[in-house]
Amino acid sequence: MSDRIFRHTHRVSYAECTLGNHIYYARYFDLLETARGEFFRAAGLPLLELQGRDTVFPVIEVRARFKSPARYDDLLQIELRILALEKIRLTFGCRILQQDGRLVLEATTEHVCATLAEKPKRLPEDLKTALRPYCCEREDASSMTPDV
Amino acid sequence: MSDRIFRHTHRVSYAECTLGNHIYYARYFDLLETARGEFFRAAGLPLLELQGRDTVFPVIEVRARFKSPARYDDLLQIELRILALEKIRLTFGCRILQQDGRLVLEATTEHVCATLAEKPKRLPEDLKTALRPYCCEREDASSMTPDV
Amino acid sequence: MSDRIFRHTHRVSYAECTLGNHIYYARYFDLLETARGEFFRAAGLPLLELQGRDTVFPVIEVRARFKSPARYDDLLQIELRILALEKIRLTFGCRILQQDGRLVLEATTEHVCATLAEKPKRLPEDLKTALRPYCCEREDASSMTPDV
Amino acid sequence: MSDRIFRHTHRVSYAECTLGNHIYYARYFDLLETARGEFFRAAGLPLLELQGRDTVFPVIEVRARFKSPARYDDLLQIELRILALEKIRLTFGCRILQQDGRLVLEATTEHVCATLAEKPKRLPEDLKTALRPYCCEREDASSMTPDV
Repeated sequence: MSDRIFRHTHRVSYAECTLGNHIYYARYFDLLETARGEFFRAAGLPLLELQGRDTVFPVIEVRARFKSPARYDDLLQIELRILALEKIRLTFGCRILQQDGRLVLEATTEHVCATLAEKPKRLPEDLKTALRPYCCEREDASSMTPDV
Repeated sequence: MSDRIFRHTHRVSYAECTLGNHIYYARYFDLLETARGEFFRAAGLPLLELQGRDTVFPVIEVRARFKSPARYDDLLQIELRILALEKIRLTFGCRILQQDGRLVLEATTEHVCATLAEKPKRLPEDLKTALRPYCCEREDASSMTPDV
Repeated sequence: MSDRIFRHTHRVSYAECTLGNHIYYARYFDLLETARGEFFRAAGLPLLELQGRDTVFPVIEVRARFKSPARYDDLLQIELRILALEKIRLTFGCRILQQDGRLVLEATTEHVCATLAEKPKRLPEDLKTALRPYCCEREDASSMTPDV
Repeated sequence: MSDRIFRHTHRVSYAECTLGNHIYYARYFDLLETARGEFFRAAGLPLLELQGRDTVFPVIEVRARFKSPARYDDLLQIELRILALEKIRLTFGCRILQQDGRLVLEATTEHVCATLAEKPKRLPEDLKTALRPYCCEREDASSMTPDV
């Protein structure tokens, strides 16, 4: 179990912020999506290529805890790992951190593997192989994201 | 326990949709925010008035289950109720439904009452009084949103 | 020439605002799109129905002048009229106003009539008939939007 | 007149796309804002630093021509130059291009220099010095953006 973490960097823009100078709560999910796209690319299977094979990953559940605000121009580190790699489901554990390590957000996003016509299907074997290095055991299934 | 539900209607725009003709997963949280704003107004205490009293409600946790896609031009019903009304915390139970009653999303959003300088503070008494009619008992604390 | 104006009301949400408490400049175009959708519906030809007839209206040009900021919770009036109704083009003149009549934004959006496969096509005759009451003569072609 | 161009790269995300697989027209302005932020940083005066000096640059006018659609996962090149550097105004000429050089969008964004309290003020001298290398003469004032 190699337990690798994928890391993606993001600079906060005005478009993402709202009153009070912090990222609008819904925009964090845009950031997580961008990081997931780069994660699949880094794993060797860009989402666009998978889409060409009639395979997409709609989100079926999200949980997020907002720990401290991220502000305009902050340079954020987005960390992704795989919490579950099942027959038709895929669950990401996500953390967003400031440069100094302060935790901004921790989240899980659960996805189902589906056709473009929105029918569930099995995760492709080559994808499972590509993602396996990023899998981690959930020691404590009750915690939202494991400590990393 | 009167257990009232606040209802808000929303027409899906192009801006909210992404590829595959469904609302982008993060945009649902924009819709919930708009509904919360109308909820506070209907309860007699618009958020802008509370803000003028140095009282805001940043989100500290969200959970959402996406049950079926909402598409361009769908007319959605957003339902809000109060799941918890504590000393400094406020939790909403949310459902989004199609006109025919089909469930699109169920979610909870947990908020802390804070000053504009982001210090936690007690929920104002008049707000608690105004929101109480929308409170429901959580019979089963483990379920994300109670059946309504 | 009847020169009717279509009016749509919009309440500003947190999601639309950025630092400094005003609508983020790009979000105004989301509002204009929502208003256009309601305009087509009011004219008797919802965009979804036209889409079912392989007819869409991608934007090919926009111009906007931002005159005064709109802030959280403001109730805005969005006004639309048709500036040009040509063989394959359609141009909207848009204004956004505060309740007290103060001008927030004036804009034009120019659209081409196209198939879903993105080929230009003629505007449907029934649509031209439906939109004609909202047409206005451009007295001064050089001005961005005529006074209304 | 050195006529330098600032270039910024952007990968298109799902969040930016709408039905028909192309960037939603309003989202292009988010991309331009992100590029402007990086431009100021590259010029040595990050917007956050200028904001700390009570200096911001609200948009007062935009014009954009959408030439060809950008799609999910496209890697876009955003080009910025200064079209006008006046006493209190600043105008950017912008182009977005595909990897193969195909033009996606050309735009101008005009900004006023203002205090945080939204009062117009002169552009700081050090900023003018820093931006001057990116200035270009407008040979043909009638064209929206000059050929580059």
